[in-house]
Amino acid sequence: MSMSQMDQEAKRSGRREVLKGAVAGAAAATLGAPGVASAAKKIKWKMVTTWPKNFPGLGVGANNLAKLINEMSGGRMQVKVYGAKELVGAFEVFDAVSRGTAQMGHGAAYYWKGKHPATQFFAAVPFGLNAQEMNGWLYHGGGLELWQKVYKPFGLIPTAIGNTGVQMGGWFNKEIKSVEDLKGLKMRIPGLGGEVLKRAGGAPVSLPGGEIFPSLQSGAIDATEFVGPYNDLAFGLYKAAKFYYYPGWHEPGTTLECMINEKAFNELPGDLQAIVKAACQVANLDMLSEYVARNNTALDALVKTHGVQLRRFPDDVLKKLKDLSDEVVGEIAKEDPLSQEIYDSFRAFRDQATAWHEVSEKAYLEARAL
Amino acid sequence: MSMSQMDQEAKRSGRREVLKGAVAGAAAATLGAPGVASAAKKIKWKMVTTWPKNFPGLGVGANNLAKLINEMSGGRMQVKVYGAKELVGAFEVFDAVSRGTAQMGHGAAYYWKGKHPATQFFAAVPFGLNAQEMNGWLYHGGGLELWQKVYKPFGLIPTAIGNTGVQMGGWFNKEIKSVEDLKGLKMRIPGLGGEVLKRAGGAPVSLPGGEIFPSLQSGAIDATEFVGPYNDLAFGLYKAAKFYYYPGWHEPGTTLECMINEKAFNELPGDLQAIVKAACQVANLDMLSEYVARNNTALDALVKTHGVQLRRFPDDVLKKLKDLSDEVVGEIAKEDPLSQEIYDSFRAFRDQATAWHEVSEKAYLEARAL
Repeated sequence: MSMSQMDQEAKRSGRREVLKGAVAGAAAATLGAPGVASAAKKIKWKMVTTWPKNFPGLGVGANNLAKLINEMSGGRMQVKVYGAKELVGAFEVFDAVSRGTAQMGHGAAYYWKGKHPATQFFAAVPFGLNAQEMNGWLYHGGGLELWQKVYKPFGLIPTAIGNTGVQMGGWFNKEIKSVEDLKGLKMRIPGLGGEVLKRAGGAPVSLPGGEIFPSLQSGAIDATEFVGPYNDLAFGLYKAAKFYYYPGWHEPGTTLECMINEKAFNELPGDLQAIVKAACQVANLDMLSEYVARNNTALDALVKTHGVQLRRFPDDVLKKLKDLSDEVVGEIAKEDPLSQEIYDSFRAFRDQATAWHEVSEKAYLEARAL
Repeated sequence: MSMSQMDQEAKRSGRREVLKGAVAGAAAATLGAPGVASAAKKIKWKMVTTWPKNFPGLGVGANNLAKLINEMSGGRMQVKVYGAKELVGAFEVFDAVSRGTAQMGHGAAYYWKGKHPATQFFAAVPFGLNAQEMNGWLYHGGGLELWQKVYKPFGLIPTAIGNTGVQMGGWFNKEIKSVEDLKGLKMRIPGLGGEVLKRAGGAPVSLPGGEIFPSLQSGAIDATEFVGPYNDLAFGLYKAAKFYYYPGWHEPGTTLECMINEKAFNELPGDLQAIVKAACQVANLDMLSEYVARNNTALDALVKTHGVQLRRFPDDVLKKLKDLSDEVVGEIAKEDPLSQEIYDSFRAFRDQATAWHEVSEKAYLEARAL
């Protein structure tokens, strides 16, 4: 999903909240000098986000994170959330937190590939880690330390604050029966997934959010990816396309991030540092849990109420996309030594996790479906 | 895994820590009268556990939880962890927290089926929810509220504080090629899984921890379940059995719990209540992440270094066990109206999650393995 899509979605679900938030935001105090809290002895932080205010799942996750820090600190620390464009634009979040305009930034690391190519490993990698594996890599496989290494030169501390789980492959008006059907396929799919599709002969296109639905409906594009049942149902894509393909090979466990201004973090007392870190982990678990619960019911509604037809990508298509994904992802490693180090760590974890989940998660889900 | 097994495991990994903990524990202060903290204005809580002190994964999770509460509260609240038998025995944890001898108890809800049959839904259900689904059900599917309803009459508040992920099916010295091979199979497997095996014609047996290894080695039993590669490698079971079966149909996402004395919780100020709740969620995410990372490397060592032979249960065996599991779990529902309510909620969530994960997690893991 791109940022422009979110703007459109925000119009549906959060306009009133955006306005309310903007007014309140104008009155918010700024963080004082190092170690000096406001007159009321409160530490006031700003969180800028790449999402429209209150965007389902993602924007709501930002709100929950702020609320939790407020509650756990007994109000000593207050974080005010700004939707995209309220304080800075979505793509300005990284720089804004880096220079201290805001102390926290809520988004996804693949938006910052222009800052460093390896940021993409911490968001979504085609045929990469799923949510559970991503958390294993980050918290107990050295991943978080590598992420911190990438953000350190920018004065930023990254943390994971949510996951969508395995996304869907997208909405198609044309059936995909073999690799041949990818040739010339006009699909809105950004990032690494788009590059993979291109190498498979497809035509990835970029479209502003407001044009996706009419383009799909008119046949100007053949397909579009978005997120998963919960967000896709709200976006109404089932009205514009016949087939809902799976699995989302291009985003198997998209990790959301919260970046924290390092200087601001270091100025916090130890208990508030621990609270901020813990709040990010709670938010991480909570968003995935919410997506699981809401995707369940949304998929049910899409299939049973709206007659959406589920289609699985054929084996040869998935194999081709996997080979091309490995090629595309491998090229990131060649950009610089740190990217290579991260790629090596990521790949080693993926290989071991694949072997372990072959006999655990995968084997169990297959057994339950017998 | 049973409690007696853990005692044996503790001898290997935590004896010195147990002794150190016991000495320190004897000096720990007790919580004062309602609302009154100690002289140093610190709130001191005790956490009793069903695990030996520092037991890998599970006992370590209890330590991490206590540490996190201490850090986030800036030392205002200190939780001291007691291994099983240090303050009360493993099976006395529920009653000890219920009556306020300790304020927190760390264990797994299926140990308390004697208190209420429905507690089993919050730990491990054969062919039930995996870890990700369990968290979805608990946090966003009404599961936690139902769990609270079960514990309320005992003055307890339950929370999830960890998950092992899908466990392994166990260690076998006899190959399982069909349902016929389950007949007369002497296997150490407790709880609902044991009941299912019994109905399949097997002979589930109960053994103290110290007798599992020699019994398996001598052929007195044909098989035993334990946890997964990380714990099983440490326990050395690969030395006593040839085949390592998967998947762990009987424990697809074992949830660990922390129960909190309701009165003690209500006496905490709001910020510490929020901290305790958040710490439990962090612990929940962290334990699963650790299991993923450590099971990866342990499975690798078991197969590559110790030559363990992985075996998948045949389809007809899994189908039979699934049918019998549904039968056994369905019987819990008939015990009382609350059990029925929980069963209905659990089943509805499992059915929807199965449909969603069919096209997401399962389809993705299958695509990656092509």
